[in-house]
Amino acid sequence: MKESVGIGLLGMGVVGGGVARVISQKGHHIQHLVGAPVAIEGILVRDVGRARSFDAPASLFTTNPNDVLHNPKVDIVVELMGGEYPALDYIQKAVSLGKHVVTANKEVMAKHGPDILAQAAKKGVQVLFEASVAGGTPIIAPLLRDLVANDVLTIHGIINGTTNYILTKMAQEGSDFGDVLKEAQELGYAESDPTNDVEGIDAAYKLAILSTLGFRARVSDADVYREGITKLTGLDFQYAKELGYAIKLLAIAAKVDGSIQVRVHPALVPDHVMIAKVDGVLNAVEIQTDLAGRVLFHGPGAGDMPTTSAVVADLVDISRNLVRNVVAAPPLRLSRDIRIRPMSELETKYYMRLNVAERPGVFAQILTVLGRLGISIASAIQKENDEEAQRAEIVLMTHRAKESSVQEALRLISDLDVVNSIGNLIRVEEWD
Amino acid sequence: MKESVGIGLLGMGVVGGGVARVISQKGHHIQHLVGAPVAIEGILVRDVGRARSFDAPASLFTTNPNDVLHNPKVDIVVELMGGEYPALDYIQKAVSLGKHVVTANKEVMAKHGPDILAQAAKKGVQVLFEASVAGGTPIIAPLLRDLVANDVLTIHGIINGTTNYILTKMAQEGSDFGDVLKEAQELGYAESDPTNDVEGIDAAYKLAILSTLGFRARVSDADVYREGITKLTGLDFQYAKELGYAIKLLAIAAKVDGSIQVRVHPALVPDHVMIAKVDGVLNAVEIQTDLAGRVLFHGPGAGDMPTTSAVVADLVDISRNLVRNVVAAPPLRLSRDIRIRPMSELETKYYMRLNVAERPGVFAQILTVLGRLGISIASAIQKENDEEAQRAEIVLMTHRAKESSVQEALRLISDLDVVNSIGNLIRVEEWD
Repeated sequence: MKESVGIGLLGMGVVGGGVARVISQKGHHIQHLVGAPVAIEGILVRDVGRARSFDAPASLFTTNPNDVLHNPKVDIVVELMGGEYPALDYIQKAVSLGKHVVTANKEVMAKHGPDILAQAAKKGVQVLFEASVAGGTPIIAPLLRDLVANDVLTIHGIINGTTNYILTKMAQEGSDFGDVLKEAQELGYAESDPTNDVEGIDAAYKLAILSTLGFRARVSDADVYREGITKLTGLDFQYAKELGYAIKLLAIAAKVDGSIQVRVHPALVPDHVMIAKVDGVLNAVEIQTDLAGRVLFHGPGAGDMPTTSAVVADLVDISRNLVRNVVAAPPLRLSRDIRIRPMSELETKYYMRLNVAERPGVFAQILTVLGRLGISIASAIQKENDEEAQRAEIVLMTHRAKESSVQEALRLISDLDVVNSIGNLIRVEEWD
Repeated sequence: MKESVGIGLLGMGVVGGGVARVISQKGHHIQHLVGAPVAIEGILVRDVGRARSFDAPASLFTTNPNDVLHNPKVDIVVELMGGEYPALDYIQKAVSLGKHVVTANKEVMAKHGPDILAQAAKKGVQVLFEASVAGGTPIIAPLLRDLVANDVLTIHGIINGTTNYILTKMAQEGSDFGDVLKEAQELGYAESDPTNDVEGIDAAYKLAILSTLGFRARVSDADVYREGITKLTGLDFQYAKELGYAIKLLAIAAKVDGSIQVRVHPALVPDHVMIAKVDGVLNAVEIQTDLAGRVLFHGPGAGDMPTTSAVVADLVDISRNLVRNVVAAPPLRLSRDIRIRPMSELETKYYMRLNVAERPGVFAQILTVLGRLGISIASAIQKENDEEAQRAEIVLMTHRAKESSVQEALRLISDLDVVNSIGNLIRVEEWD
């Protein structure tokens, strides 16, 4: 029976401060859960002199990672630095030294998760990362524990709060991307360089993690097809609404004929499904399985205290095992040879917005191109006639078609004399 | 290292059949997760001769519970009989014999959960019951594991699929309760005796379980204030909609000034909150906590395969521990002396529908009564004037008021000459 559990913290931003405060303020509760006291034994910071939001002896702070990693009192290393390096090095070092690890690092887990987990299994330590996806909303443990008897069929996630905030505002106000981004930046919901969020990079990290666990296969962020939200306009939201759809930046994973499709892009979502109703900075993940059907987890995807909630849950999990001398459960067995489907093989429905000349026969020409490529039209609306300029806007919804055919059709259509420009192409995600 | 895990099944309805099929069809997957094969070693049935949806040697079936409970090969007893007796006796017997238990039995867990868990802790065995609330939607393990660092502030649940189906239909079609109930019975969504569902008894069981775990206090179904859905009319849904609300049968638990409020009743819910959007037979539970904020779990609340998903997850959890010789985690420490708030102390907003005579001064008389009791009005609409009969309908929305004052006001109002009848009183649940 271990008499106490020692924590080493790497990184002392808002989440690190939250974890330290909760360990101190809820010490009695945590001790009861764990069966022994849990104490912070070392904290890696950039500046030891800075004021902190919690009480801790000055001797705990260090700027040297080895003071934490090699500290024999540290049983669990909590990595909250973010970014690939040096976080990855510290995590691997910790595991190699036989320490357990809790991390909120989506980038490291998306790029190196399977390797880290394999290394951890060899060393007999646990690496937990509930906070890396959807912040305080439980999703990783439920997937690994509650849905363990299921085969996952699809995953649909709204797992980036910044972009969901922007899209919600665009839908509500009919405004364009640039204006809402600026507003979000002023409010602190978007960073000054918003690339990671608006280009879907952050969501792709999280989708890689969920897919790896859900499909028990090695899926990395490099496997994920990515398309950001910068090309969306107020018009797209207006037409989507008329057609009965919301527009969301979806992270989608699916098992199709034994191979895996993973993609992050804006999608039209039928407005009656739950995930279409997820607004603002909130996150949601819907897991469709063979037994449980569709299960959705919804809540805050970021923020210091929600993330702290997930980190401390992982800490308690490992600490309980440590105190009772329990070895970690057998590791996930990940298939290595599963095929990632190229995007060209995607089959779905599409929304197309085209700027055309208002002339007889325009529509027929477009339909001819589509027909030749086997793409049939479910509905079409002609919009915003600018009589003076003799321009019109055509919005098409297709039946299921192949991505490669649709891309080819768009190339041919944009070459037509009567077509001024392709307004937008957005994939449509249907629920059964 | 245990070489195999033996399961004894009590009850062989659709869920029992599902569990047996999954254990057989996913045997390889389960064996990998557990680290040893998991096999069914005994099945209690009513009729050993009946045809089954899965293959099992005839020798496994018995009509004598002792053949399962006393079978030395049975490590885990899975109770899927439902109802208080004899299920409770069998569970207690199993625990006293040192067997682990998985149950889907909400009635037993609501009435006797804390005692069973205390008995299990003494015997060093696990009793898991994920399937007892919200079927295949994970809620109990996430509450105990992922939200373990949190203090739960409120619980809001739609945890009875039958009534949510009926209310969804009433809202969509403007129909009255009786008609929709009949339709639901014909479709198999409601039982021929629908009392348990429509009077909120089933929801009260589940709320007692969630409250016990969430507040770490002994809360039984007898503590839960209950009001069913039978008095709701199409008119209420129409007015609620105009006011920006949905009507849902909510299971609500809250910690108020250190005491616990637990109630199941129809409630007006602002139509923009997620739980207002939960339609049909689906379930959802929203947990509000100090750290994670509001987290919502949404999915199928019943059905053979979703329930099977939850039961097998519990089975795998216990089996893993058995194989690795792990003792169960320390039991939940439940406070015994926590006060349950009487309903009279509730403070919330109210919707009142009154049938009144259409005469000058009627409204003033009603407002006078309300004012005397300290109840102020947020909005009022006068509706459906029946000019010939000189009748009108008044719909009032109050500001926050005390339940005891509102009940007293209703008594006084119904005594007024100008008031024909109280149409309905529905509590309003606000989100911040």
